[in-house]
Amino acid sequence: MSKEVNSESVSLCPLSTAAATEQEMLCIFGTGDLGRSLGQRLLQTGYKVVYGSRRPHSCGPLPPGTQAMSHVAAAQSARLVFVCIHRENYNFLETLAPQLKGKVLVDVSNNLKKNMYPEANAEYLQRLIPGAQVVKGFNTLSAWALQNGPSDANRQVYVCGNSLEAKQAVIEVATKLGFTVLDRGSLTAARELEDFPLQLFPEWRLPLQLATGLTAFFFFYLLIRDVIYSYVVNDKDISFRIMASLANKVFPIVSLIMLSLCYLPGVIAAFLQLYRGTKYKRFPDWLDRWMLCRKQLGLVALALASLHVLYTLIIPIRYYVRYRLAAHTISQIKENKTSPFDTTMAWRTDSYYVIGILGFGLYLLLGITSLPSVSNVLSWREFSFIQSKLGYLTLFFCTFHTYLYGWDTFLQPSSYKWFMLPGYMLSLVVPSVVLVLKLLLLLPCVDSTLTRIRQGWERTDPEQERKKLLLT
Amino acid sequence: MSKEVNSESVSLCPLSTAAATEQEMLCIFGTGDLGRSLGQRLLQTGYKVVYGSRRPHSCGPLPPGTQAMSHVAAAQSARLVFVCIHRENYNFLETLAPQLKGKVLVDVSNNLKKNMYPEANAEYLQRLIPGAQVVKGFNTLSAWALQNGPSDANRQVYVCGNSLEAKQAVIEVATKLGFTVLDRGSLTAARELEDFPLQLFPEWRLPLQLATGLTAFFFFYLLIRDVIYSYVVNDKDISFRIMASLANKVFPIVSLIMLSLCYLPGVIAAFLQLYRGTKYKRFPDWLDRWMLCRKQLGLVALALASLHVLYTLIIPIRYYVRYRLAAHTISQIKENKTSPFDTTMAWRTDSYYVIGILGFGLYLLLGITSLPSVSNVLSWREFSFIQSKLGYLTLFFCTFHTYLYGWDTFLQPSSYKWFMLPGYMLSLVVPSVVLVLKLLLLLPCVDSTLTRIRQGWERTDPEQERKKLLLT
Amino acid sequence: MSKEVNSESVSLCPLSTAAATEQEMLCIFGTGDLGRSLGQRLLQTGYKVVYGSRRPHSCGPLPPGTQAMSHVAAAQSARLVFVCIHRENYNFLETLAPQLKGKVLVDVSNNLKKNMYPEANAEYLQRLIPGAQVVKGFNTLSAWALQNGPSDANRQVYVCGNSLEAKQAVIEVATKLGFTVLDRGSLTAARELEDFPLQLFPEWRLPLQLATGLTAFFFFYLLIRDVIYSYVVNDKDISFRIMASLANKVFPIVSLIMLSLCYLPGVIAAFLQLYRGTKYKRFPDWLDRWMLCRKQLGLVALALASLHVLYTLIIPIRYYVRYRLAAHTISQIKENKTSPFDTTMAWRTDSYYVIGILGFGLYLLLGITSLPSVSNVLSWREFSFIQSKLGYLTLFFCTFHTYLYGWDTFLQPSSYKWFMLPGYMLSLVVPSVVLVLKLLLLLPCVDSTLTRIRQGWERTDPEQERKKLLLT
Repeated sequence: MSKEVNSESVSLCPLSTAAATEQEMLCIFGTGDLGRSLGQRLLQTGYKVVYGSRRPHSCGPLPPGTQAMSHVAAAQSARLVFVCIHRENYNFLETLAPQLKGKVLVDVSNNLKKNMYPEANAEYLQRLIPGAQVVKGFNTLSAWALQNGPSDANRQVYVCGNSLEAKQAVIEVATKLGFTVLDRGSLTAARELEDFPLQLFPEWRLPLQLATGLTAFFFFYLLIRDVIYSYVVNDKDISFRIMASLANKVFPIVSLIMLSLCYLPGVIAAFLQLYRGTKYKRFPDWLDRWMLCRKQLGLVALALASLHVLYTLIIPIRYYVRYRLAAHTISQIKENKTSPFDTTMAWRTDSYYVIGILGFGLYLLLGITSLPSVSNVLSWREFSFIQSKLGYLTLFFCTFHTYLYGWDTFLQPSSYKWFMLPGYMLSLVVPSVVLVLKLLLLLPCVDSTLTRIRQGWERTDPEQERKKLLLT
Repeated sequence: MSKEVNSESVSLCPLSTAAATEQEMLCIFGTGDLGRSLGQRLLQTGYKVVYGSRRPHSCGPLPPGTQAMSHVAAAQSARLVFVCIHRENYNFLETLAPQLKGKVLVDVSNNLKKNMYPEANAEYLQRLIPGAQVVKGFNTLSAWALQNGPSDANRQVYVCGNSLEAKQAVIEVATKLGFTVLDRGSLTAARELEDFPLQLFPEWRLPLQLATGLTAFFFFYLLIRDVIYSYVVNDKDISFRIMASLANKVFPIVSLIMLSLCYLPGVIAAFLQLYRGTKYKRFPDWLDRWMLCRKQLGLVALALASLHVLYTLIIPIRYYVRYRLAAHTISQIKENKTSPFDTTMAWRTDSYYVIGILGFGLYLLLGITSLPSVSNVLSWREFSFIQSKLGYLTLFFCTFHTYLYGWDTFLQPSSYKWFMLPGYMLSLVVPSVVLVLKLLLLLPCVDSTLTRIRQGWERTDPEQERKKLLLT
Repeated sequence: MSKEVNSESVSLCPLSTAAATEQEMLCIFGTGDLGRSLGQRLLQTGYKVVYGSRRPHSCGPLPPGTQAMSHVAAAQSARLVFVCIHRENYNFLETLAPQLKGKVLVDVSNNLKKNMYPEANAEYLQRLIPGAQVVKGFNTLSAWALQNGPSDANRQVYVCGNSLEAKQAVIEVATKLGFTVLDRGSLTAARELEDFPLQLFPEWRLPLQLATGLTAFFFFYLLIRDVIYSYVVNDKDISFRIMASLANKVFPIVSLIMLSLCYLPGVIAAFLQLYRGTKYKRFPDWLDRWMLCRKQLGLVALALASLHVLYTLIIPIRYYVRYRLAAHTISQIKENKTSPFDTTMAWRTDSYYVIGILGFGLYLLLGITSLPSVSNVLSWREFSFIQSKLGYLTLFFCTFHTYLYGWDTFLQPSSYKWFMLPGYMLSLVVPSVVLVLKLLLLLPCVDSTLTRIRQGWERTDPEQERKKLLLT
């Protein structure tokens, strides 16, 4: 930074106090949609706005009160220049380098897709005009938000740049427009900011695909096993059960499997570390990616579990259920025999429901603590306590709930129709494996080895050590 | 780092490092409630506190360990002065301008109502003493929070001011007191900070009034149509249904109407843009205001929908319902005729419930994503995907749920009592209109025009263009 | 801003712009687990890393691409030094003081328990090497998070230090690593940062212990009163009711008591202020501590209330309930007498359920507004409106719900088994007391006195005043 910077930061302080008393002039390069939206908003907030345009006399309707000039004239009239033009047209800015020297250039551009260019737009701009102070910012906002000011998802503005004073000037403007500003550091963060508006739930894709796949599979599996089997073998049309009864089998099955898939990678990783005897080798890529989407897996599983709860709670108001209960009562009277009260049955169903409720309660707790604002408040010791300890407890409750559902039908051949196992039995495979493996890891000898490995202080590679010793 | 750095940070660093080793002296102007609370807290945190008072010897009980002096003496003993006096008394501070030169003045004042004065208190203070560095801050805290330190709603302190160093010094103190500091930029933000503590859910007023109005209307409407009609025409007292059955009609009706009112303004805006052929004309004020309270409309609607869910789920444990079911069974036996199982009825009721559950699930998702911490994490592309695409899907499910409730009673004259339509039919008007209009907007030709208009690149004002051409 | 400032930003800016173009060199003291994790992550982000070690040639496997040197050599090659060694070994750093002069030292250390040392590690480090600029930071992250970058609970990095420029340099690095940085002010905050990772829900301990204690007490109380009494007196085994029926009595009882315990301290505090005639005396310690855990008390109570709701909603699908209902219907038919419809009963049970639902709805609202991101958005006027006004309304609804449950059994001697009151009667004691006391506080004369006391402007200590007057 040369001396000009210094004399220039002198000109910054009057800038801010001036803003308080008289209107400051800001410049916008580009009279497109974004430029006009931004200009309108700046005008409303009390700034004066001048546009820089290649055709200042025929650039279409601008917000009333603003004027368009040549880029050169516009650049000279303001210290802060918003660059609202497409990256493809940046190169002509190079000719303006003398006029833009010492100015703050705010790069608000976005690209149509990721990795279109080797360097971020803002870094490219900085390279074109080294004498200017480029600040990346505002690009995560829609034109609507720029025009109308902050609202829900548009409250935050990200800013990055190499010059602290330049950033401060931009933060000033953004704050006056009503936005909350997050400083993301130097211009190297520009690429990240430019990628931000392009993503649509990238980390949710895999869990959602998995959920869809599993749901479709189990839906057709149970459709064949329950509805079609009944139609073919018993000649009974129970297709009306698809809406509620069948769905209420599919959802909990998929939910349980997905919940267990949250904990499977952790168990695999632990065994991998035990096998390798070190934690300093990176995990295979698929395991890394799996571990990174555990939160999303869990939340999708929670959504399905919630549906299961609602589907279960409406059971007693369903016509089919009421009809069946009334028919049962009527038949008992007609046949004049009363079935005695079955205490085992009462214990069994109550336990089944209660374990399910407790599991769902813990499930909800896991979901609430994964809300950003809640998990931010937790220390990582607390977070890992909830997500790990309580997580396994949740998995245990939900698995146990499913075992109680099965009760003694595991051994009844009548439940195997067309050699197809009941759905809930299939759903028990993965969670049972995860829980058994986790139990193994909790054995004192295994646990202490793993803890030692994870503290990183000790590693056991006896074979290699011996070989090394032999070689030397 | 050269030598100059040190000489400069001299003025600031002793402040901060001194705080670490020995007690720093802070000054508070004003011995009122706020001043005393603040002083007590500062003392507890390890600062030394001196009060500036007009009557230093008779200013009432101060926190033990502090002392009161004249304003002049107090101002000279500290670099940071908290101004805890009412704006009405600011003018006498002008006489202290020489003593306050170079000091950091923290303006913690609030007004009793909005827009009492043309300029913010802090800006007024800065104008009175131009030589001081005024920082607005702490005013969003209650005296209780100032005295007892941060807790829930009082964790954040907003700060604004023109001088970076002055703000840094105030942030230092606030951080030591345990608060999280949000820098809101220059002193121009002071008015916003001063308005902050005065508001009581301003943006919720309209939605809540609307909900109350609609609830009252539909309550009395259904009271007449159901309870009073039954009493007058059938001479049957079913007033006991008011508590649960009637409420469980009113809540979903109001909820559905309010949900559709979230999406109506968007549709109106789209048609307005289509009609005008441009997006650069501002919407009428009522539409703007309507659009700004959509989130609150939706959340109130969600609350009512949740009540509807709970009211529905307790149906089977209600005495009235159990009695009716038992009576039905008994009458079947006594008359010795069994009603056959009605598959259509099973399909219909199950579909009705399931669509409702799915609609409610999506509804909840919309509610969760409107939590500040969740919506902040989303890009606006993601946020608009959820709130728009999933929002319309929610509206569709909920509307469809209501149509399924009606089923074939739309054409039955028996359901029109005293020429009053059933409540659910009334509730279907607005959502149906919104959905039909939205469908129109999704027609390829309309959609492409709208997209072009919204991208702002094209506008169609052929008539005016032609007129212009004719005139020239 | 004087001239020195400008020349100073010279020394910092090359640092940040260099990072943008070529790899910056960072130094890590210590080749332990933390040092290696951090180094690996820094490498991945594009930094060059050099390790300072006492045995540079035998310090074990380092991330490929890094090298180990002596501390002296390593310190000289970088401007930023991460100190990843245990506090016990800090003292040798004193010998490096000349090399570390002007360097930024990042202290990432943690202790094994609180208050092990009189001063924070970072402050100790600063005292050892006064010429360096110590910044505390990164210590709230796990080694896992340091190695793999930010994820859920590990998104935030806390930083504190006396030098603004040093902090800015550290913030730069943390931001490039993908973390969100929270500046906690000067180095005096270091102790707080060092205590942060050691805590495990400290503020939840008391409420959870209380909940556990109350739950255990009421479980055994009701076990004796319901199950054992029935077994001994009626010789009837109803132990199957433990799972659901008994739990569904214990949970709401404990929930109601804990909810009322949220509001009891506020009422006690008000009466204490009334009695003392001032708000400037501190409350006794137990009251202060009680008031500070009200939020946690309330959330535990909400969790129990939610369980109560779920337990209640599954009632109609329980085998025991279905059996009893069918048996009732069958007995009615067999005895050929139909019990008439009881309108009072319908009113009573519906009111009971509806009041419960509304209470639970408000309860949920209180829970949602205590989410950090929601309560941060509220002004304290709004927050206190919800937590106080709506809170008391919630307590009133829930208490009323319980009174409706009792209805007319309060006076029936049959409900007193073995001289034991029914559980719900016990649960009503505290909430009733709280509500009555609150009603007293709302009496106009009491309320106005309390308001005056709380505004702090007036205090009534007539006796003392009189004594003072007499003495003088």
